[in-house]
Amino acid sequence: MSKNPESVSLCPLNSAAATEPEPLCIFGTGDLGRSLGQRLLQSGYRVVYGSRKPHSCGPLPPGTQAMSHSAAAQSAALVFICIHREHYNFLETLAPELQGKVLVDVSNNLKKNLYPEANVEYLQRLVPGAHVVKAFNTLSAWTLQNGPSDANRQVYLCGNSAEAKQAVAETATKLGFTVLDRGSLCAARELEDFPLQLFPEWRLPLRIAIGLTAFFYFYLLIRIVIYTYVQKGDDISFRIMVSLANKVFPIVSLIMLSLCYLPGVIAAFLQLYRGTKYRRFPDWLDRWMLCRKQLGLLALAFAFLHVLYTLIIPQRYYVRNRIAGSTILLIKENKTSAFDSALAWRSDSFLSTGILGFGLYVLLGITSLPSVSNALSWREFSFVQSKLGYLTLFFCTLHTYLYGWNKFLKPTSYPWYTLPGYLLCLIVPTVVLVLKFLLLLPCVDRSLTRIRQGWDRTNKVDDGEKSLLA
Amino acid sequence: MSKNPESVSLCPLNSAAATEPEPLCIFGTGDLGRSLGQRLLQSGYRVVYGSRKPHSCGPLPPGTQAMSHSAAAQSAALVFICIHREHYNFLETLAPELQGKVLVDVSNNLKKNLYPEANVEYLQRLVPGAHVVKAFNTLSAWTLQNGPSDANRQVYLCGNSAEAKQAVAETATKLGFTVLDRGSLCAARELEDFPLQLFPEWRLPLRIAIGLTAFFYFYLLIRIVIYTYVQKGDDISFRIMVSLANKVFPIVSLIMLSLCYLPGVIAAFLQLYRGTKYRRFPDWLDRWMLCRKQLGLLALAFAFLHVLYTLIIPQRYYVRNRIAGSTILLIKENKTSAFDSALAWRSDSFLSTGILGFGLYVLLGITSLPSVSNALSWREFSFVQSKLGYLTLFFCTLHTYLYGWNKFLKPTSYPWYTLPGYLLCLIVPTVVLVLKFLLLLPCVDRSLTRIRQGWDRTNKVDDGEKSLLA
Amino acid sequence: MSKNPESVSLCPLNSAAATEPEPLCIFGTGDLGRSLGQRLLQSGYRVVYGSRKPHSCGPLPPGTQAMSHSAAAQSAALVFICIHREHYNFLETLAPELQGKVLVDVSNNLKKNLYPEANVEYLQRLVPGAHVVKAFNTLSAWTLQNGPSDANRQVYLCGNSAEAKQAVAETATKLGFTVLDRGSLCAARELEDFPLQLFPEWRLPLRIAIGLTAFFYFYLLIRIVIYTYVQKGDDISFRIMVSLANKVFPIVSLIMLSLCYLPGVIAAFLQLYRGTKYRRFPDWLDRWMLCRKQLGLLALAFAFLHVLYTLIIPQRYYVRNRIAGSTILLIKENKTSAFDSALAWRSDSFLSTGILGFGLYVLLGITSLPSVSNALSWREFSFVQSKLGYLTLFFCTLHTYLYGWNKFLKPTSYPWYTLPGYLLCLIVPTVVLVLKFLLLLPCVDRSLTRIRQGWDRTNKVDDGEKSLLA
Repeated sequence: MSKNPESVSLCPLNSAAATEPEPLCIFGTGDLGRSLGQRLLQSGYRVVYGSRKPHSCGPLPPGTQAMSHSAAAQSAALVFICIHREHYNFLETLAPELQGKVLVDVSNNLKKNLYPEANVEYLQRLVPGAHVVKAFNTLSAWTLQNGPSDANRQVYLCGNSAEAKQAVAETATKLGFTVLDRGSLCAARELEDFPLQLFPEWRLPLRIAIGLTAFFYFYLLIRIVIYTYVQKGDDISFRIMVSLANKVFPIVSLIMLSLCYLPGVIAAFLQLYRGTKYRRFPDWLDRWMLCRKQLGLLALAFAFLHVLYTLIIPQRYYVRNRIAGSTILLIKENKTSAFDSALAWRSDSFLSTGILGFGLYVLLGITSLPSVSNALSWREFSFVQSKLGYLTLFFCTLHTYLYGWNKFLKPTSYPWYTLPGYLLCLIVPTVVLVLKFLLLLPCVDRSLTRIRQGWDRTNKVDDGEKSLLA
Repeated sequence: MSKNPESVSLCPLNSAAATEPEPLCIFGTGDLGRSLGQRLLQSGYRVVYGSRKPHSCGPLPPGTQAMSHSAAAQSAALVFICIHREHYNFLETLAPELQGKVLVDVSNNLKKNLYPEANVEYLQRLVPGAHVVKAFNTLSAWTLQNGPSDANRQVYLCGNSAEAKQAVAETATKLGFTVLDRGSLCAARELEDFPLQLFPEWRLPLRIAIGLTAFFYFYLLIRIVIYTYVQKGDDISFRIMVSLANKVFPIVSLIMLSLCYLPGVIAAFLQLYRGTKYRRFPDWLDRWMLCRKQLGLLALAFAFLHVLYTLIIPQRYYVRNRIAGSTILLIKENKTSAFDSALAWRSDSFLSTGILGFGLYVLLGITSLPSVSNALSWREFSFVQSKLGYLTLFFCTLHTYLYGWNKFLKPTSYPWYTLPGYLLCLIVPTVVLVLKFLLLLPCVDRSLTRIRQGWDRTNKVDDGEKSLLA
Repeated sequence: MSKNPESVSLCPLNSAAATEPEPLCIFGTGDLGRSLGQRLLQSGYRVVYGSRKPHSCGPLPPGTQAMSHSAAAQSAALVFICIHREHYNFLETLAPELQGKVLVDVSNNLKKNLYPEANVEYLQRLVPGAHVVKAFNTLSAWTLQNGPSDANRQVYLCGNSAEAKQAVAETATKLGFTVLDRGSLCAARELEDFPLQLFPEWRLPLRIAIGLTAFFYFYLLIRIVIYTYVQKGDDISFRIMVSLANKVFPIVSLIMLSLCYLPGVIAAFLQLYRGTKYRRFPDWLDRWMLCRKQLGLLALAFAFLHVLYTLIIPQRYYVRNRIAGSTILLIKENKTSAFDSALAWRSDSFLSTGILGFGLYVLLGITSLPSVSNALSWREFSFVQSKLGYLTLFFCTLHTYLYGWNKFLKPTSYPWYTLPGYLLCLIVPTVVLVLKFLLLLPCVDRSLTRIRQGWDRTNKVDDGEKSLLA
């Protein structure tokens, strides 16, 4: 970038607010152009529009001027390009007027990968002498006109010229936005894809959750509802709504929670087996590790539903009816209700471990909130997510074992030779906990710590400059 | 602003930390002045106080000096004005000494609109040659002395001189604060009103919530408690505490949730009727749209109370007594409790839709947290708040319909010819859902999309430069 | 800091992205050095490593070069020091090559207070001619290599040279991090301790919570379980899991909530007694005031557990068994269950105050989230935390009084002459509420307000410059 102060007139922009406002130029009188112009006006800027037909370009914000592209470009140091990419080609002819100006590309495409290069890179190619900056494209016209609101406070920008970015950042700050510099034009593609994405990092975890839910719903439907209908002729299909849901949700929650911690132990064993940490993990493991947070939050959502479904049990007509029925039966048979202390222990332990597990679950969820996790040091974050995470997994697994207790001994638990759902769901968490226990054994832990500190079984590194572990 | 580097000595300030600290000047030895001075000292600055009576101005932080206003002003490039606005007038006489200095106005007023101009604008008028900056006024003396804490990390500043603002921003950053530039002096009024405001955007939604709660409480009190007392002579006034509350809270919650989505559909129909989106909505609609978030969060709070009130039902003495009573009655009449499968379906569906609705409600609430919504793209935020929002409304409305079921057929549901509360509260959500359904019809949706993309039935815009929709 | 532009080549760094990347130098080929190098490469920088044995320093990221320390230092303006502090001494010999360069110290120690001075201060002493900056040390090697994630977005930096810090900040920003300037080198110690700390501000509140929990568990174990066993020979040890926990949790929660508000009233009475606010509070009071937020959040966690433990009561085997037993008893004795309206009032009020108290508790918790409290003005935050806080305390205390009701009159409530737990736990909140009530009396309130506005009974301050209260 040229050091010539004429090339990017940053300083006049600064002092402009105090004296007479410097005009900013907007190419394009469409929706976004008008909204942006109105907002700039309100913030004390003078705005000129560049248009093909300056005299018939529709309603513009009062107080602005429309002129030819060429005249408009000459009057301002900063030009917003609010035109669709398909119409960029005419800008090539304006290259002399745009020489040394800051061009702000606010455009988006309707789909990803429509063009071989980012819109702003195309713009730079058309007008090589200008300082192009990608900015504002993640905002809607509504946000631009009405000012920042919750989801729309941040303006991402990127560009190769630091001064040009600074000039755009100042304007954005004056409009009330927070600026986030994403680096050079290489990041433009990412910024242009940003408004088009819809929870990309949630896709895989959501698919796993939906797949597991569907499988267990179907499995339990056959085992419980259809089996009862076929064998005894009883229609207990009403159980689909609450009883089945309250079996499926905790199962999916526990499996997903353990899937959160499984890649960590796999990675540890892989490092132990390889004897080094300098070889990258296989791709599937990397991808899995990157969606652990989402897996955990979905597991929490299922646990939350499980808690609500459990707490409303006493309000169900079916349950009230059954309790009344059993009391009536006791009376008819002239029995008193005998108290079984062991059963009381088991029932209370089952409920207690569930509550403590859920409490820790919620704590993990709260520390996942961006503002909370940003306030934690790395050691604190890893303490919560790893130590407390395993404790949560332990409590929830124990809760499930206490639920099962000795049910697995009864032959009635295996209709049509199928395993109960809770037994199936215990497999993964038990494996994770056993593997984690092995990793905590002093001898294994010592090897792993050495490997993680940079020790390499095959290729011993120079001891003079020991690796630094933050 | 002058380009003369002498006028605002920014660079010496910067390098000061490394060599000898540059003195900063504080006018006013009151509470705020002392707290600020102490904090500046701790951050490595030298501090001089300007006072009318330098020798008898009370206890100052040790290590600071007090001198006359004029001497103090001359020794520093940056002067904090920690004086009440009523005493500003003497500053006029100091104009020569303050020429070219940065004056930081930290004052607040006790009420809004006490004076025709902002304090800092008055200061600028008194000392036209100085670079005035409004800053730190949103912080308490306690925060200034003890450093930033949760609610007080941000220092808002505004001013016409970018260099002066930069100098103040550097000082604020050194004190550990985060700086937010709010633009030119025009924003000063807003900053001075900021510490005086108390949830302004929550006022209207809170009034609606309180109004609805009071109305329905009174309405149900008459229908249930007073009617029973008058007609049957039974005193069931204890129901006020839980039963009535648990009828009022869900009613208010559902109405407020639908009031969240009603302005959106009204706006859509208005655009369809007008055939353009370029005419502004009436003021009442704009105001309504701007408080949708608060309406939704209050609705969530009421739903949360409804959930808690529902979950403790089995613990109520009244309910336990009634359940025992009905079991005893069954026994006395020698009946068994017959099981009604349809009733089980209805009860379980009622509970299930309620739980799923509440789960989505909580999800909407979580995405309303500033740190979460800031992490979402615009498309993601609108997906959650609109798509999931309507799903929540649908589940909650269905939950209410299942609650009512066929109760509306019984004459006992209309004491004194009044409608049951749940029927009254179904009106608004049903209207919203029906209107939304109409908007989703392909033909209507197509027209609306065209209008929102800038098409104008009355005033066809130039097609050459198509509007840009981010 | 020298104004000589050669000394810190900031500008060439800026323009580098556009033309040919400026090399950055990394001393140390350990874990952190490699991760940092790889990340810098990905962001478009050229990287050279300085190593003692450039030809045998293990696997380096492809595309980087290893050379002698001296050659590497000469080729770049910015040098990252990724070496353990113990090996710093060789840098002294490189002082001529490092003259005027920016040295970034990323090191951490394994323990606090191992050395008399911060690592970066030691580095500055070894190479006095360099501009040292402490940065990146709070990040792990994993974060450096894979880019910022939730807990690791912020790079704290400190240093005496503003330009050097600016240069490091630009690099950090290009790597995608958010930069937080913590001031001069004096802050280095704090930054180096930062990754080693584990919830320091939670220690005291956690110890109080654990101490109270242990005491009340033990106390109630003796009073309830052991007393019953000794006096009646009944083994009710199963009650440990739920019944005891559900007595201990609300007790600890209420005591901790009142401990949140106790220091505030003590401070107010201290100010009234002293007649001034200019004397600092005793240290223990200051420390106590600073952990109020943590006390409150722990109290909320205990309240949350209390709510869950209460809501699952109807699902307990013991409770179902007892309810069935009492119904059977009623039948056998041929009684109907008589309805006691006063009991219904008390039961419903007890539950209602608990729910409202918990609702407010949750509201307080939500406003404690950093992103929420940052969005509040100081007046709003203090309104929520103080006004709503006392309301929460009032509701929870009332809830406990309604729980006790007239139980304290029965002799069976005093086994072995011990007080019931709920009576013990009412002491602190009652004291706090009574003291707060006294402070709200008009005459006391007036004195306190005067003192807080700067009035001093002993040492009357100059009225000319009234103190400013923000």
